[in-house]
Amino acid sequence: MISSVQNPRVKAVLALQQKSAERRRTGLFVVEGRRELEHCVEERFEVESVYVCKEMVGEGEDVWMDRLEVIEVTRAVYEKMAYRGSTEGMIAVVKERKLQLGDLRLREKPLLMVVERVEKPGNLGAILRSADAAGVDAVIVCDALTDLWNPNLIRSSIGAVFTVPCVLCGSDECICFLKERGVQILTAQLQDSEEYYDVDMKQGTAIVMGTEATGLTEVWRQAADAHIRIPMLGRLDSLNVSVSAAVLLYEAVRQRGEAFMS
Amino acid sequence: MISSVQNPRVKAVLALQQKSAERRRTGLFVVEGRRELEHCVEERFEVESVYVCKEMVGEGEDVWMDRLEVIEVTRAVYEKMAYRGSTEGMIAVVKERKLQLGDLRLREKPLLMVVERVEKPGNLGAILRSADAAGVDAVIVCDALTDLWNPNLIRSSIGAVFTVPCVLCGSDECICFLKERGVQILTAQLQDSEEYYDVDMKQGTAIVMGTEATGLTEVWRQAADAHIRIPMLGRLDSLNVSVSAAVLLYEAVRQRGEAFMS
Repeated sequence: MISSVQNPRVKAVLALQQKSAERRRTGLFVVEGRRELEHCVEERFEVESVYVCKEMVGEGEDVWMDRLEVIEVTRAVYEKMAYRGSTEGMIAVVKERKLQLGDLRLREKPLLMVVERVEKPGNLGAILRSADAAGVDAVIVCDALTDLWNPNLIRSSIGAVFTVPCVLCGSDECICFLKERGVQILTAQLQDSEEYYDVDMKQGTAIVMGTEATGLTEVWRQAADAHIRIPMLGRLDSLNVSVSAAVLLYEAVRQRGEAFMS
Repeated sequence: MISSVQNPRVKAVLALQQKSAERRRTGLFVVEGRRELEHCVEERFEVESVYVCKEMVGEGEDVWMDRLEVIEVTRAVYEKMAYRGSTEGMIAVVKERKLQLGDLRLREKPLLMVVERVEKPGNLGAILRSADAAGVDAVIVCDALTDLWNPNLIRSSIGAVFTVPCVLCGSDECICFLKERGVQILTAQLQDSEEYYDVDMKQGTAIVMGTEATGLTEVWRQAADAHIRIPMLGRLDSLNVSVSAAVLLYEAVRQRGEAFMS
Protein backbone atom coordinates (compact mmCIF):
# COMPACT_ATOMS: atom_id res chain seq x y z
CA MET A 1 0.00 0.00 0.00
CA ILE A 2 1.38 3.39 -1.04
CA SER A 3 0.27 6.13 1.32
CA SER A 4 2.78 8.90 0.65
CA VAL A 5 2.42 11.32 -2.23
CA GLN A 6 6.23 11.62 -2.09
CA ASN A 7 6.64 7.99 -3.15
CA PRO A 8 8.88 7.82 -6.26
CA ARG A 9 6.29 5.67 -8.06
CA VAL A 10 3.75 8.48 -7.68
CA LYS A 11 6.21 10.92 -9.15
CA ALA A 12 6.97 8.60 -12.02
CA VAL A 13 3.27 8.31 -12.91
CA LEU A 14 2.88 12.09 -12.82
CA ALA A 15 5.88 12.58 -15.09
CA LEU A 16 4.42 10.11 -17.61
CA GLN A 17 1.05 11.88 -17.54
CA GLN A 18 2.51 15.30 -18.04
CA LYS A 19 5.55 14.93 -20.28
CA SER A 20 5.70 13.46 -23.76
CA ALA A 21 9.51 13.46 -23.48
CA GLU A 22 9.26 11.17 -20.45
CA ARG A 23 6.93 8.83 -22.35
CA ARG A 24 9.37 8.80 -25.27
CA ARG A 25 12.35 8.13 -22.98
CA THR A 26 10.73 5.21 -21.14
CA GLY A 27 8.38 3.81 -23.78
CA LEU A 28 5.66 3.88 -21.11
CA PHE A 29 2.39 5.74 -20.70
CA VAL A 30 -0.51 6.03 -18.27
CA VAL A 31 -4.07 4.75 -18.63
CA GLU A 32 -6.74 6.07 -16.31
CA GLY A 33 -10.26 4.79 -15.86
CA ARG A 34 -11.80 1.34 -15.79
CA ARG A 35 -13.20 1.15 -19.31
CA GLU A 36 -10.07 2.48 -20.98
CA LEU A 37 -7.92 0.04 -19.00
CA GLU A 38 -10.23 -2.83 -19.90
CA HIS A 39 -9.84 -2.09 -23.64
CA CYS A 40 -6.11 -1.81 -23.14
CA VAL A 41 -5.92 -5.26 -21.52
CA GLU A 42 -8.28 -6.83 -24.07
CA GLU A 43 -6.06 -5.62 -26.87
CA ARG A 44 -3.07 -7.26 -25.14
CA PHE A 45 -1.10 -4.18 -24.32
CA GLU A 46 1.58 -4.97 -21.76
CA VAL A 47 0.52 -3.52 -18.41
CA GLU A 48 3.45 -2.83 -16.12
CA SER A 49 1.60 -1.95 -12.96
CA VAL A 50 -1.89 -0.98 -11.80
CA TYR A 51 -2.58 1.44 -8.97
CA VAL A 52 -5.96 1.02 -7.33
CA CYS A 53 -7.76 3.01 -4.67
CA LYS A 54 -10.17 0.35 -3.42
CA GLU A 55 -12.65 2.70 -1.78
CA MET A 56 -13.11 4.50 -5.12
CA VAL A 57 -13.60 1.43 -7.29
CA GLY A 58 -17.31 0.82 -7.86
CA GLU A 59 -19.27 -2.41 -8.00
CA GLY A 60 -18.60 -5.10 -10.58
CA GLU A 61 -16.16 -7.92 -11.08
CA ASP A 62 -13.16 -6.98 -13.14
CA VAL A 63 -12.16 -10.44 -14.27
CA TRP A 64 -9.59 -8.96 -16.64
CA MET A 65 -7.74 -7.55 -13.64
CA ASP A 66 -6.85 -11.00 -12.26
CA ARG A 67 -3.94 -11.15 -14.65
CA LEU A 68 -2.43 -7.90 -13.38
CA GLU A 69 -0.21 -6.98 -10.48
CA VAL A 70 -2.18 -4.48 -8.40
CA ILE A 71 -0.69 -1.94 -6.02
CA GLU A 72 -3.06 -0.41 -3.53
CA VAL A 73 -2.92 3.34 -2.89
CA THR A 74 -4.70 5.68 -0.49
CA ARG A 75 -7.30 8.14 -1.70
CA ALA A 76 -4.91 11.05 -1.27
CA VAL A 77 -2.26 9.32 -3.36
CA TYR A 78 -4.79 8.41 -6.04
CA GLU A 79 -6.04 11.95 -6.27
CA LYS A 80 -2.48 13.18 -6.64
CA MET A 81 -1.84 10.70 -9.48
CA ALA A 82 -5.13 11.17 -11.31
CA TYR A 83 -5.10 13.47 -14.32
CA ARG A 84 -8.87 13.45 -14.69
CA GLY A 85 -11.46 14.30 -12.09
CA SER A 86 -12.59 10.71 -12.56
CA THR A 87 -13.47 8.72 -9.48
CA GLU A 88 -12.96 5.29 -10.95
CA GLY A 89 -9.93 4.58 -8.79
CA MET A 90 -7.70 2.85 -11.36
CA ILE A 91 -4.50 4.03 -12.99
CA ALA A 92 -2.06 1.82 -14.90
CA VAL A 93 1.37 2.21 -16.41
CA VAL A 94 1.49 0.52 -19.79
CA LYS A 95 4.11 -0.18 -22.46
CA GLU A 96 3.57 1.72 -25.69
CA ARG A 97 3.04 -0.17 -28.94
CA LYS A 98 4.90 1.16 -31.95
CA LEU A 99 3.34 0.07 -35.22
CA GLN A 100 5.05 0.68 -38.56
CA LEU A 101 3.26 0.79 -41.91
CA GLY A 102 4.73 -2.63 -42.69
CA ASP A 103 3.08 -4.11 -39.58
CA LEU A 104 -0.42 -3.33 -40.81
CA ARG A 105 -2.56 -6.21 -41.98
CA LEU A 106 -5.00 -4.75 -44.44
CA ARG A 107 -8.06 -6.22 -46.07
CA GLU A 108 -8.04 -6.60 -49.83
CA LYS A 109 -9.87 -3.29 -50.25
CA PRO A 110 -8.93 -1.46 -47.10
CA LEU A 111 -10.51 1.65 -45.66
CA LEU A 112 -7.88 3.90 -44.10
CA MET A 113 -8.09 7.20 -42.27
CA VAL A 114 -5.05 9.42 -42.75
CA VAL A 115 -4.58 12.57 -40.69
CA GLU A 116 -1.85 15.08 -41.42
CA ARG A 117 -0.47 17.20 -38.61
CA VAL A 118 -3.49 17.27 -36.37
CA GLU A 119 -2.61 19.56 -33.50
CA LYS A 120 -4.95 18.90 -30.62
CA PRO A 121 -4.63 15.52 -28.90
CA GLY A 122 -8.35 15.69 -28.04
CA ASN A 123 -9.25 16.02 -31.73
CA LEU A 124 -7.06 13.08 -32.70
CA GLY A 125 -8.66 10.97 -29.97
CA ALA A 126 -12.13 11.86 -31.23
CA ILE A 127 -11.09 10.95 -34.80
CA LEU A 128 -9.92 7.56 -33.54
CA ARG A 129 -13.30 7.03 -31.89
CA SER A 130 -15.10 7.79 -35.17
CA ALA A 131 -12.64 5.57 -37.05
CA ASP A 132 -13.26 2.66 -34.68
CA ALA A 133 -17.02 2.91 -35.21
CA ALA A 134 -16.65 2.96 -39.00
CA GLY A 135 -14.46 -0.16 -38.89
CA VAL A 136 -11.36 1.24 -40.58
CA ASP A 137 -8.34 -0.99 -41.14
CA ALA A 138 -6.03 1.58 -39.58
CA VAL A 139 -5.46 5.24 -38.81
CA ILE A 140 -2.21 6.74 -40.09
CA VAL A 141 -1.01 9.98 -38.52
CA CYS A 142 1.48 11.83 -40.72
CA ASP A 143 4.02 14.29 -39.35
CA ALA A 144 2.36 14.06 -35.96
CA LEU A 145 2.48 16.97 -33.55
CA THR A 146 1.35 14.84 -30.60
CA ASP A 147 2.23 11.34 -29.44
CA LEU A 148 -0.52 8.74 -29.25
CA TRP A 149 -0.28 8.33 -25.48
CA ASN A 150 -1.21 11.83 -24.39
CA PRO A 151 -3.84 11.61 -21.59
CA ASN A 152 -6.30 13.90 -23.44
CA LEU A 153 -5.99 11.77 -26.55
CA ILE A 154 -6.60 8.51 -24.68
CA ARG A 155 -9.56 10.06 -22.91
CA SER A 156 -11.30 11.51 -25.96
CA SER A 157 -10.70 8.28 -27.87
CA ILE A 158 -12.55 6.42 -25.06
CA GLY A 159 -10.10 3.60 -25.73
CA ALA A 160 -10.06 3.61 -29.56
CA VAL A 161 -6.33 4.32 -29.41
CA PHE A 162 -6.04 0.70 -28.21
CA THR A 163 -8.59 -0.91 -30.52
CA VAL A 164 -7.65 0.77 -33.83
CA PRO A 165 -4.21 0.06 -35.35
CA CYS A 166 -2.41 3.43 -35.41
CA VAL A 167 0.79 4.27 -37.26
CA LEU A 168 2.83 7.46 -37.01
CA CYS A 169 4.98 8.23 -40.05
CA GLY A 170 6.00 10.87 -42.57
CA SER A 171 3.69 12.02 -45.38
CA ASP A 172 6.07 10.88 -48.17
CA GLU A 173 6.42 7.43 -46.65
CA CYS A 174 2.65 7.15 -46.32
CA ILE A 175 1.99 8.24 -49.91
CA CYS A 176 4.48 5.63 -51.21
CA PHE A 177 2.82 2.97 -49.10
CA LEU A 178 -0.66 3.80 -50.44
CA LYS A 179 0.45 4.03 -54.09
CA GLU A 180 2.32 0.71 -53.89
CA ARG A 181 -0.77 -1.02 -52.56
CA GLY A 182 -3.10 0.60 -55.08
CA VAL A 183 -5.12 2.39 -52.41
CA GLN A 184 -6.81 5.49 -53.82
CA ILE A 185 -6.12 8.76 -52.02
CA LEU A 186 -9.09 11.05 -51.35
CA THR A 187 -8.12 14.38 -49.84
CA ALA A 188 -10.64 16.49 -47.95
CA GLN A 189 -10.30 20.07 -49.16
CA LEU A 190 -12.55 22.93 -50.13
CA GLN A 191 -10.89 24.07 -53.36
CA ASP A 192 -11.18 22.11 -56.62
CA SER A 193 -13.19 19.37 -55.00
CA GLU A 194 -16.34 17.37 -55.62
CA GLU A 195 -18.98 16.31 -53.14
CA TYR A 196 -17.70 13.32 -51.18
CA TYR A 197 -20.69 11.16 -52.07
CA ASP A 198 -20.00 11.46 -55.79
CA VAL A 199 -16.76 9.47 -55.43
CA ASP A 200 -16.52 5.66 -55.53
CA MET A 201 -15.22 4.41 -52.19
CA LYS A 202 -15.81 0.70 -52.76
CA GLN A 203 -12.21 0.21 -53.87
CA GLY A 204 -9.30 0.41 -51.43
CA THR A 205 -9.53 3.95 -50.07
CA ALA A 206 -7.58 6.32 -47.85
CA ILE A 207 -9.44 9.40 -46.68
CA VAL A 208 -6.94 12.14 -45.87
CA MET A 209 -7.63 15.15 -43.67
CA GLY A 210 -5.47 18.09 -42.62
CA THR A 211 -5.57 20.43 -39.67
CA GLU A 212 -8.68 22.44 -38.92
CA ALA A 213 -6.75 25.66 -39.33
CA THR A 214 -4.74 25.24 -42.52
CA GLY A 215 -5.93 22.04 -44.20
CA LEU A 216 -3.66 19.68 -46.11
CA THR A 217 -0.19 20.46 -47.43
CA GLU A 218 0.58 20.54 -51.14
CA VAL A 219 2.27 17.11 -51.16
CA TRP A 220 -1.07 15.47 -50.34
CA ARG A 221 -3.11 17.59 -52.76
CA GLN A 222 -0.71 16.54 -55.52
CA ALA A 223 -0.81 12.88 -54.56
CA ALA A 224 -4.60 12.74 -54.52
CA ASP A 225 -6.70 10.64 -56.87
CA ALA A 226 -9.66 12.87 -56.06
CA HIS A 227 -10.39 15.92 -53.93
CA ILE A 228 -13.55 15.67 -51.86
CA ARG A 229 -15.55 18.10 -49.77
CA ILE A 230 -18.48 18.00 -47.41
CA PRO A 231 -20.99 20.61 -48.57
CA MET A 232 -21.51 23.29 -45.94
CA LEU A 233 -25.14 24.35 -46.07
CA GLY A 234 -25.34 26.59 -43.00
CA ARG A 235 -23.97 29.94 -42.01
CA LEU A 236 -20.91 28.84 -40.07
CA ASP A 237 -18.85 26.95 -42.63
CA SER A 238 -17.31 24.60 -40.15
CA LEU A 239 -17.58 21.06 -38.85
CA ASN A 240 -15.54 19.57 -36.05
CA VAL A 241 -12.74 17.46 -37.52
CA SER A 242 -13.90 14.20 -35.90
CA VAL A 243 -17.41 14.88 -37.22
CA SER A 244 -16.05 15.39 -40.74
CA ALA A 245 -14.05 12.18 -40.43
CA ALA A 246 -17.18 10.23 -39.48
CA VAL A 247 -19.28 11.69 -42.30
CA LEU A 248 -16.64 10.73 -44.87
CA LEU A 249 -15.89 7.27 -43.44
CA TYR A 250 -19.57 6.36 -43.15
CA GLU A 251 -20.08 7.18 -46.81
CA ALA A 252 -17.57 4.40 -47.52
CA VAL A 253 -19.50 2.13 -45.12
CA ARG A 254 -22.75 2.95 -46.93
CA GLN A 255 -21.32 2.31 -50.39
CA ARG A 256 -19.73 -0.96 -49.35
CA GLY A 257 -22.82 -2.22 -47.51
CA GLU A 258 -23.27 -5.74 -46.14
CA ALA A 259 -20.03 -7.16 -47.50
CA PHE A 260 -17.98 -4.64 -45.56
CA MET A 261 -19.79 -5.23 -42.32
CA SER A 262 -19.27 -8.96 -42.01
CA MET B 1 -14.85 52.74 -17.97
CA ILE B 2 -15.53 50.10 -15.31
CA SER B 3 -12.46 49.45 -13.19
CA SER B 4 -13.92 47.79 -10.07
CA VAL B 5 -14.75 44.10 -9.93
CA GLN B 6 -17.35 45.10 -7.31
CA ASN B 7 -19.36 47.05 -9.90
CA PRO B 8 -22.95 45.77 -9.92
CA ARG B 9 -22.82 45.30 -13.70
CA VAL B 10 -19.91 42.89 -13.28
CA LYS B 11 -21.90 40.92 -10.74
CA ALA B 12 -24.93 40.87 -13.03
CA VAL B 13 -22.86 39.40 -15.88
CA LEU B 14 -21.42 36.73 -13.59
CA ALA B 15 -24.87 35.75 -12.37
CA LEU B 16 -26.11 35.38 -15.97
CA GLN B 17 -23.09 33.23 -16.87
CA GLN B 18 -23.47 30.93 -13.91
CA LYS B 19 -27.20 30.60 -13.20
CA SER B 20 -29.88 29.38 -15.55
CA ALA B 21 -32.49 30.67 -13.05
CA GLU B 22 -31.09 34.18 -13.44
CA ARG B 23 -31.25 33.86 -17.24
CA ARG B 24 -34.85 32.69 -16.97
CA ARG B 25 -35.79 35.52 -14.58
CA THR B 26 -34.31 38.28 -16.74
CA GLY B 27 -34.63 36.84 -20.24
CA LEU B 28 -30.98 37.76 -20.77
CA PHE B 29 -27.80 35.79 -21.41
CA VAL B 30 -24.10 36.37 -21.99
CA VAL B 31 -22.11 35.98 -25.21
CA GLU B 32 -18.34 35.82 -25.03
CA GLY B 33 -15.87 35.99 -27.88
CA ARG B 34 -15.71 37.99 -31.08
CA ARG B 35 -16.93 35.41 -33.56
CA GLU B 36 -19.87 34.28 -31.43
CA LEU B 37 -20.90 37.89 -30.88
CA GLU B 38 -20.61 38.62 -34.58
CA HIS B 39 -23.01 35.76 -35.42
CA CYS B 40 -25.34 36.98 -32.72
CA VAL B 41 -25.46 40.49 -34.18
CA GLU B 42 -25.78 39.22 -37.76
CA GLU B 43 -28.81 37.17 -36.76
CA ARG B 44 -30.37 40.29 -35.27
CA PHE B 45 -30.39 39.29 -31.64
CA GLU B 46 -30.99 42.30 -29.42
CA VAL B 47 -27.71 43.20 -27.71
CA GLU B 48 -28.23 45.07 -24.45
CA SER B 49 -24.64 46.00 -23.71
CA VAL B 50 -21.10 45.09 -24.76
CA TYR B 51 -18.13 45.10 -22.40
CA VAL B 52 -14.80 45.49 -24.09
CA CYS B 53 -11.25 45.35 -22.77
CA LYS B 54 -9.48 47.31 -25.50
CA GLU B 55 -5.98 46.05 -24.81
CA MET B 56 -7.21 42.46 -25.32
CA VAL B 57 -9.10 43.05 -28.56
CA GLY B 58 -6.92 42.02 -31.52
CA GLU B 59 -6.54 43.60 -34.92
CA GLY B 60 -9.40 43.92 -37.37
CA GLU B 61 -12.32 46.25 -37.95
CA ASP B 62 -15.51 45.12 -36.29
CA VAL B 63 -17.95 47.06 -38.43
CA TRP B 64 -20.87 45.22 -36.86
CA MET B 65 -19.93 46.77 -33.49
CA ASP B 66 -20.71 50.30 -34.64
CA ARG B 67 -24.36 49.68 -33.93
CA LEU B 68 -23.71 48.69 -30.32
CA GLU B 69 -23.24 50.61 -27.10
CA VAL B 70 -19.80 49.67 -25.81
CA ILE B 71 -18.67 49.92 -22.19
CA GLU B 72 -14.95 49.82 -21.62
CA VAL B 73 -13.56 47.69 -18.79
CA THR B 74 -10.10 47.12 -17.35
CA ARG B 75 -8.26 43.86 -17.86
CA ALA B 76 -8.87 42.80 -14.26
CA VAL B 77 -12.61 43.39 -14.64
CA TYR B 78 -12.70 41.53 -17.95
CA GLU B 79 -10.91 38.56 -16.48
CA LYS B 80 -13.37 38.48 -13.62
CA MET B 81 -16.33 38.52 -16.04
CA ALA B 82 -14.93 36.03 -18.55
CA TYR B 83 -16.14 32.46 -18.27
CA ARG B 84 -13.64 31.16 -20.79
CA GLY B 85 -9.90 31.55 -20.77
CA SER B 86 -10.40 33.38 -24.05
CA THR B 87 -8.44 36.55 -24.61
CA GLU B 88 -10.72 38.12 -27.18
CA GLY B 89 -11.77 40.89 -24.85
CA MET B 90 -15.50 41.04 -25.68
CA ILE B 91 -18.51 40.09 -23.58
CA ALA B 92 -22.10 41.05 -24.32
CA VAL B 93 -25.42 40.79 -22.56
CA VAL B 94 -28.10 39.75 -25.03
CA LYS B 95 -31.88 39.23 -24.98
CA GLU B 96 -32.94 35.63 -25.43
CA ARG B 97 -35.12 34.65 -28.36
CA LYS B 98 -37.95 32.28 -27.60
CA LEU B 99 -39.19 30.45 -30.65
CA GLN B 100 -42.33 28.31 -30.59
CA LEU B 101 -43.08 25.51 -33.03
CA GLY B 102 -45.64 27.80 -34.68
CA ASP B 103 -42.93 30.38 -35.39
CA LEU B 104 -40.92 28.02 -37.58
CA ARG B 105 -40.92 28.65 -41.31
CA LEU B 106 -40.27 25.30 -42.90
CA ARG B 107 -39.48 24.37 -46.47
CA GLU B 108 -41.96 22.15 -48.27
CA LYS B 109 -39.95 19.05 -47.40
CA PRO B 110 -38.11 20.12 -44.30
CA LEU B 111 -35.17 18.46 -42.63
CA LEU B 112 -35.44 18.68 -38.86
CA MET B 113 -33.20 17.54 -36.04
CA VAL B 114 -35.06 16.57 -32.87
CA VAL B 115 -33.20 15.86 -29.64
CA GLU B 116 -34.91 14.44 -26.58
CA ARG B 117 -33.56 15.22 -23.13
CA VAL B 118 -29.96 15.78 -24.04
CA GLU B 119 -28.13 16.32 -20.78
CA LYS B 120 -24.83 18.00 -21.49
CA PRO B 121 -24.96 21.59 -22.78
CA GLY B 122 -21.67 20.95 -24.62
CA ASN B 123 -23.23 18.04 -26.53
CA LEU B 124 -26.28 20.07 -27.51
CA GLY B 125 -24.03 22.86 -28.75
CA ALA B 126 -22.03 20.41 -30.86
CA ILE B 127 -25.27 18.99 -32.31
CA LEU B 128 -26.33 22.52 -33.28
CA ARG B 129 -23.00 23.00 -35.04
CA SER B 130 -23.52 19.79 -37.05
CA ALA B 131 -27.12 20.81 -37.77
CA ASP B 132 -26.03 24.21 -39.08
CA ALA B 133 -23.56 22.60 -41.48
CA ALA B 134 -26.17 20.17 -42.80
CA GLY B 135 -28.59 23.02 -43.43
CA VAL B 136 -31.51 21.84 -41.30
CA ASP B 137 -34.69 23.90 -41.13
CA ALA B 138 -34.64 23.81 -37.33
CA VAL B 139 -33.51 21.95 -34.24
CA ILE B 140 -36.23 21.00 -31.76
CA VAL B 141 -35.19 20.13 -28.21
CA CYS B 142 -37.84 18.12 -26.36
CA ASP B 143 -38.13 18.04 -22.58
CA ALA B 144 -34.88 19.96 -22.35
CA LEU B 145 -32.61 19.56 -19.33
CA THR B 146 -30.58 22.65 -20.22
CA ASP B 147 -31.51 26.10 -21.49
CA LEU B 148 -30.13 27.24 -24.85
CA TRP B 149 -28.10 30.07 -23.38
CA ASN B 150 -25.71 28.10 -21.19
CA PRO B 151 -22.12 29.33 -21.80
CA ASN B 152 -20.83 25.82 -22.59
CA LEU B 153 -23.59 25.34 -25.12
CA ILE B 154 -22.93 28.65 -26.86
CA ARG B 155 -19.22 27.90 -26.94
CA SER B 156 -19.44 24.38 -28.34
CA SER B 157 -22.03 25.53 -30.92
CA ILE B 158 -19.45 28.14 -32.10
CA GLY B 159 -22.47 30.34 -32.74
CA ALA B 160 -24.89 27.84 -34.31
CA VAL B 161 -27.30 28.52 -31.45
CA PHE B 162 -27.81 31.90 -33.15
CA THR B 163 -27.86 30.77 -36.78
CA VAL B 164 -30.13 27.70 -36.47
CA PRO B 165 -33.77 28.18 -35.43
CA CYS B 166 -34.14 26.32 -32.11
CA VAL B 167 -37.37 25.44 -30.33
CA LEU B 168 -37.78 24.00 -26.84
CA CYS B 169 -41.02 22.08 -26.28
CA GLY B 170 -42.55 18.87 -24.96
CA SER B 171 -42.30 15.56 -26.83
CA ASP B 172 -46.09 15.19 -27.24
CA GLU B 173 -46.41 18.68 -28.68
CA CYS B 174 -43.54 18.01 -31.07
CA ILE B 175 -44.98 14.70 -32.27
CA CYS B 176 -48.36 16.35 -32.98
CA PHE B 177 -46.61 19.12 -34.90
CA LEU B 178 -44.67 16.66 -37.07
CA LYS B 179 -47.69 14.42 -37.76
CA GLU B 180 -49.89 17.38 -38.70
CA ARG B 181 -47.33 18.57 -41.22
CA GLY B 182 -46.74 15.11 -42.64
CA VAL B 183 -43.08 15.05 -41.61
CA GLN B 184 -41.82 11.48 -41.22
CA ILE B 185 -40.25 10.60 -37.88
CA LEU B 186 -37.03 8.60 -37.96
CA THR B 187 -35.83 7.56 -34.51
CA ALA B 188 -32.20 6.62 -33.90
CA GLN B 189 -32.18 3.43 -31.82
CA LEU B 190 -30.31 0.15 -31.74
CA GLN B 191 -33.21 -2.27 -31.33
CA ASP B 192 -35.61 -3.15 -34.18
CA SER B 193 -33.92 -0.78 -36.55
CA GLU B 194 -32.60 -0.71 -40.08
CA GLU B 195 -29.44 0.90 -41.38
CA TYR B 196 -30.01 4.63 -41.73
CA TYR B 197 -29.01 4.69 -45.41
CA ASP B 198 -31.76 2.22 -46.34
CA VAL B 199 -34.46 4.78 -45.48
CA ASP B 200 -35.80 7.41 -47.88
CA MET B 201 -35.02 10.86 -46.48
CA LYS B 202 -36.03 12.89 -49.54
CA GLN B 203 -39.48 13.53 -48.09
CA GLY B 204 -40.02 15.85 -45.11
CA THR B 205 -37.97 14.22 -42.35
CA ALA B 206 -37.32 14.62 -38.65
CA ILE B 207 -34.33 12.71 -37.29
CA VAL B 208 -34.84 12.07 -33.58
CA MET B 209 -32.09 11.24 -31.10
CA GLY B 210 -32.18 10.51 -27.36
CA THR B 211 -29.59 10.79 -24.63
CA GLU B 212 -26.28 9.00 -24.95
CA ALA B 213 -27.00 7.05 -21.77
CA THR B 214 -30.59 5.83 -22.16
CA GLY B 215 -31.67 6.60 -25.72
CA LEU B 216 -35.20 7.63 -26.66
CA THR B 217 -38.31 7.23 -24.54
CA GLU B 218 -41.17 4.95 -25.56
CA VAL B 219 -43.39 7.79 -26.78
CA TRP B 220 -40.93 8.50 -29.60
CA ARG B 221 -40.35 4.86 -30.49
CA GLN B 222 -44.13 4.47 -30.86
CA ALA B 223 -44.52 7.62 -32.92
CA ALA B 224 -41.76 6.64 -35.36
CA ASP B 225 -42.30 5.94 -39.05
CA ALA B 226 -39.00 4.06 -39.08
CA HIS B 227 -36.27 3.15 -36.62
CA ILE B 228 -32.77 3.76 -37.89
CA ARG B 229 -29.30 2.87 -36.65
CA ILE B 230 -25.73 3.65 -37.56
CA PRO B 231 -23.89 0.34 -37.90
CA MET B 232 -21.08 0.06 -35.34
CA LEU B 233 -18.22 -1.80 -36.97
CA GLY B 234 -15.54 -1.39 -34.32
CA ARG B 235 -14.92 -2.67 -30.85
CA LEU B 236 -16.25 0.26 -28.85
CA ASP B 237 -19.89 0.49 -29.89
CA SER B 238 -20.15 4.19 -29.44
CA LEU B 239 -20.17 7.42 -31.39
CA ASN B 240 -20.33 10.88 -29.93
CA VAL B 241 -23.90 12.20 -30.19
CA SER B 242 -22.99 15.19 -32.38
CA VAL B 243 -21.06 12.84 -34.67
CA SER B 244 -24.10 10.56 -34.97
CA ALA B 245 -26.29 13.58 -35.71
CA ALA B 246 -23.98 14.65 -38.55
CA VAL B 247 -23.79 11.16 -40.09
CA LEU B 248 -27.59 10.91 -40.14
CA LEU B 249 -28.24 14.47 -41.36
CA TYR B 250 -25.65 14.23 -44.12
CA GLU B 251 -27.32 11.10 -45.44
CA ALA B 252 -30.40 13.28 -46.01
CA VAL B 253 -28.16 15.88 -47.70
CA ARG B 254 -26.70 13.17 -49.95
CA GLN B 255 -30.08 11.76 -50.93
CA ARG B 256 -31.53 15.18 -51.66
CA GLY B 257 -28.49 16.37 -53.64
CA GLU B 258 -28.35 19.56 -55.68
CA ALA B 259 -31.96 20.58 -55.16
CA PHE B 260 -31.50 20.73 -51.39
CA MET B 261 -28.34 22.75 -51.56
CA SER B 262 -29.62 25.68 -53.56
